[in-house]
Amino acid sequence: MSVKIGEYLFLRLKELGVQTCFGVPGDYELATLDLIEDAGLKFSGNPNELIASYAADGYGRLNGVGSFITTFGPGELSAYCGHAGAYTEFVPVAHIVGYPGRGAMKAHTIMHHTLGTGEFGMYHEMAKHISCDTVVLMDPATAPEEIDRCLQTMLHESRPCYIGIPVDMGQAMCDGSGLETKLSRDLPPNDPEGEKKLVAELRSWLEKKSPILIVDGNAVRNDVVAESQKLSDVTGLPTFTTCMGKGALNEEAPNYGGVYNGGGSHESVRKAVESADAVFWIGNFPSDFNTAEFTMNVAQDITVDFQRFFIKVGSQKHELKMKYVLQALIKSIEKLPLARTSTQKVDWDPYPLSNPGKGTELTQDYLWAALGKWFRPGDFAIGETGTSAFGIADSKLPSGAGLFNQTIFGSIGFATGAAVGAAKAIQERGNYKRCVLVTGEGSFHLTLQALMDMLKLRLNPIVIILNNDGYTIERLIHGKDAFYNKLPQIDYSGLAHVFGPEHPSKYWGPVGTADELHKVLEDSEFNDGECFRLLELKLGYLDAPASVRQAAAAVEAFNQKKRPQNGSMGG
Amino acid sequence: MSVKIGEYLFLRLKELGVQTCFGVPGDYELATLDLIEDAGLKFSGNPNELIASYAADGYGRLNGVGSFITTFGPGELSAYCGHAGAYTEFVPVAHIVGYPGRGAMKAHTIMHHTLGTGEFGMYHEMAKHISCDTVVLMDPATAPEEIDRCLQTMLHESRPCYIGIPVDMGQAMCDGSGLETKLSRDLPPNDPEGEKKLVAELRSWLEKKSPILIVDGNAVRNDVVAESQKLSDVTGLPTFTTCMGKGALNEEAPNYGGVYNGGGSHESVRKAVESADAVFWIGNFPSDFNTAEFTMNVAQDITVDFQRFFIKVGSQKHELKMKYVLQALIKSIEKLPLARTSTQKVDWDPYPLSNPGKGTELTQDYLWAALGKWFRPGDFAIGETGTSAFGIADSKLPSGAGLFNQTIFGSIGFATGAAVGAAKAIQERGNYKRCVLVTGEGSFHLTLQALMDMLKLRLNPIVIILNNDGYTIERLIHGKDAFYNKLPQIDYSGLAHVFGPEHPSKYWGPVGTADELHKVLEDSEFNDGECFRLLELKLGYLDAPASVRQAAAAVEAFNQKKRPQNGSMGG
Repeated sequence: MSVKIGEYLFLRLKELGVQTCFGVPGDYELATLDLIEDAGLKFSGNPNELIASYAADGYGRLNGVGSFITTFGPGELSAYCGHAGAYTEFVPVAHIVGYPGRGAMKAHTIMHHTLGTGEFGMYHEMAKHISCDTVVLMDPATAPEEIDRCLQTMLHESRPCYIGIPVDMGQAMCDGSGLETKLSRDLPPNDPEGEKKLVAELRSWLEKKSPILIVDGNAVRNDVVAESQKLSDVTGLPTFTTCMGKGALNEEAPNYGGVYNGGGSHESVRKAVESADAVFWIGNFPSDFNTAEFTMNVAQDITVDFQRFFIKVGSQKHELKMKYVLQALIKSIEKLPLARTSTQKVDWDPYPLSNPGKGTELTQDYLWAALGKWFRPGDFAIGETGTSAFGIADSKLPSGAGLFNQTIFGSIGFATGAAVGAAKAIQERGNYKRCVLVTGEGSFHLTLQALMDMLKLRLNPIVIILNNDGYTIERLIHGKDAFYNKLPQIDYSGLAHVFGPEHPSKYWGPVGTADELHKVLEDSEFNDGECFRLLELKLGYLDAPASVRQAAAAVEAFNQKKRPQNGSMGG
Repeated sequence: MSVKIGEYLFLRLKELGVQTCFGVPGDYELATLDLIEDAGLKFSGNPNELIASYAADGYGRLNGVGSFITTFGPGELSAYCGHAGAYTEFVPVAHIVGYPGRGAMKAHTIMHHTLGTGEFGMYHEMAKHISCDTVVLMDPATAPEEIDRCLQTMLHESRPCYIGIPVDMGQAMCDGSGLETKLSRDLPPNDPEGEKKLVAELRSWLEKKSPILIVDGNAVRNDVVAESQKLSDVTGLPTFTTCMGKGALNEEAPNYGGVYNGGGSHESVRKAVESADAVFWIGNFPSDFNTAEFTMNVAQDITVDFQRFFIKVGSQKHELKMKYVLQALIKSIEKLPLARTSTQKVDWDPYPLSNPGKGTELTQDYLWAALGKWFRPGDFAIGETGTSAFGIADSKLPSGAGLFNQTIFGSIGFATGAAVGAAKAIQERGNYKRCVLVTGEGSFHLTLQALMDMLKLRLNPIVIILNNDGYTIERLIHGKDAFYNKLPQIDYSGLAHVFGPEHPSKYWGPVGTADELHKVLEDSEFNDGECFRLLELKLGYLDAPASVRQAAAAVEAFNQKKRPQNGSMGG
């Protein structure tokens, strides 16, 4: 069976569940793009490549795999930020790059999009730093296996790969027989003996006096959300999440305990976590922003650290994959119940701010509590880096709602672009109903033309913009009144019309009081309108959730320290 | 004399003529940013980092040196496209990157904006591929000399450098005595004997029967525009420019012959160039887009190729800097006139399309001719990659007007961002009066939030948008009716109000006929209004200047070739 190389690649992506590729067309990739519809995929062009990379990330988070196509040089370089973000946060994304023709490259011809030096390999070298695997296809004989290797590594490591296709290669023929064998999403099985021993040890940890469970970001990113929830259910352990893990758990479960964020946590949550005698930490990612600047206080010797490829019990590392260990542990408990279960019960309110009085001026403390009451099952929320991602940790999510943010990489502008991909995946899969983007206006400015995509694709998201007249989180870290944290004011009421005059949209705002907010959140058109909806909130210059106020001060102190300590879970 | 490291850097930039730094603030750079105003510089924040990098490029082209500041990771990665463009097109730009604290880096702490691996060196490694020199300052004792080395290399090679400043280093003290010695913009002098011999040889070439002069992009980028014009004046040789060199010459001089663009040239221009018996080609840059896809027909053995660091007479390479050779050659001719001067005279119209009849439907052929009559002395135009940059080569520029584009790197979206920096430099220096941006709507979408900068800084440019319902240049290359070259329509009339509701602005359009265009170009508010002005033109789906129609077909043919030939001047 002989197929075109571009077709081979697109058929593989389709096999992995991709229905839509994002990107920006450029002449080096057009011949390859001609093949996309024949392979049963759709191409949805974005206003720029950064947005395309963010959209592929958001799509990949909801769909399992994402992909986007850029042109050699300017196109791919403009997308490296989104590509690196997917690498950091373990999102499997295929970045396809249209390269100049092989003849031009071999002859060192000075082509457009090069550095004018006659060289063609420098961008590939750059991309290697932010990819789990890379290739530039130069030979039809090896192209199929090279494509498969890259995609397989992407699945294995859950990180982006980079596939360069010269303009004369997309339509070239190759052997298509590899397509008869599906790529594997499954990791190789664990050593059965090692797994058995570890499960026995973990059972004894679960029988301690007050073990707890923390479900962190790497649980979400490494596909053990179902196992994590199941472990929580079968053990009944008090179960917490983190900023990065927020959205993974059923927050209506009786043993759900809240968001643990070190010194930025609610007091009852902090106490419960820090008084445990065993901590099952699934997908721990101890970065500064995920630990309220290393203010978490959980000792290593009482912690079981579950990761994709290893599990650390105290300081003892086992080279076993967490997914299978979790499955085996659950099976073991279902077969033979634990000798004793935790005496600790969740008797506190994980969202103690959930019922503040309505003030006149809108505050973030009020906002997040109000959104927590407003969210419905079927909602999927995306929180932007800054006060939004931290604040939304204080919003209670109903069972059946989901959320993501970009806690570790923390690129402002990400959420707006990622919302395009997330909403597109939701539109295709129907697994959620409403897509809700929450972003600060400073972050929003970076990628605001993503609205064109939302409008033309009729994604109908609800976009909530926190307008606080500048970079509030930066102000809290450094430069409270500094000129550089000030931003120009734009007219949010006119944005959707400008970016999609033919598409239905509605604006609410500017909303500056709790009462006004309440009115909008009860408006049926806002809740169920079949159109693009934008709500502009006016917030105080330095207003932020308590967790951010605490963390920001710690960031500045940390930045200026010469010899920082790692957090207790660091490294 | 002891100064803070950040201050040292900013004082050096000020010494090099920088008045404004662009960038986006991020917490790793804020402490350094606090020092910028004390050093007498201004910081002008941009909506995103890609725009900041383009703005620094545009500013650097008009100001001599540009600079911008981003944060480690997401910030710098988002700007690599603009950074690489400056590298390709020889623009000296200092890219300053705010790094995490030294302690965090030494301890491999998992900080935000990293890849989550505990490593900090990967972005620096990436940046090395697109920088002439790089450093991450880790030691106050060596910081001043490292800053000087980077800036000196930037000046020497006329390319971007990369300076990383950890968050705890900006305010650290260092020895400031280096500031007493100015950095040098001058290249080291040539070997006098070699220069003398070469000048004698060049004189004999100038005394041939029909020598001509071509002033190309590397003449502009390497600061020999004045010498090039002078050589043209003292010799009276027929003098041409190229797409990349457009804007460098006095087009009202009697010996100005037009734009040579290989097979895309006007017939009289092509004939004149290709029948010469000696071609003085200053700053030759034989890329595909600058040669109408290698359709130039000038033999190497009759060419003198002038470059920054060497001169090639036929195939004989001399390691001599062109700037000093040109100065010596001019001096020699002024002292002792040439024995004979060219018999060839410019008796053709370099802009033969300059007087087409007014049609009903607006065409690009009409548009560029009309703009050629509309431009005034004191105008500075920026042409976007695509039909704009090629088309504007057919617009006659009056003496005292200028222009740039990004012919080699060819990143769409560049022109809009670069216009911010160019207009800012013009505002500061007063060396031009009006800044005119000409862009296609597809390119414009990538960086359209740059309008926020134009409005808030009261740069009052004239922005001309060619709306042809998609990526026209891509359509001409490949995919005439393809879905991927189609773009969403936005409402250009509302843009300026949305992006700067407090700032004066005016919209004209959509203009679809030659008569309407004529009316706008005569409108005094359009010409001299003290506000932001946007003109939207409606153009045919596949309408393009003749040179583009020819070149685009050649690009597609070239892309699919297996063994391309270099152009006659290739490599």
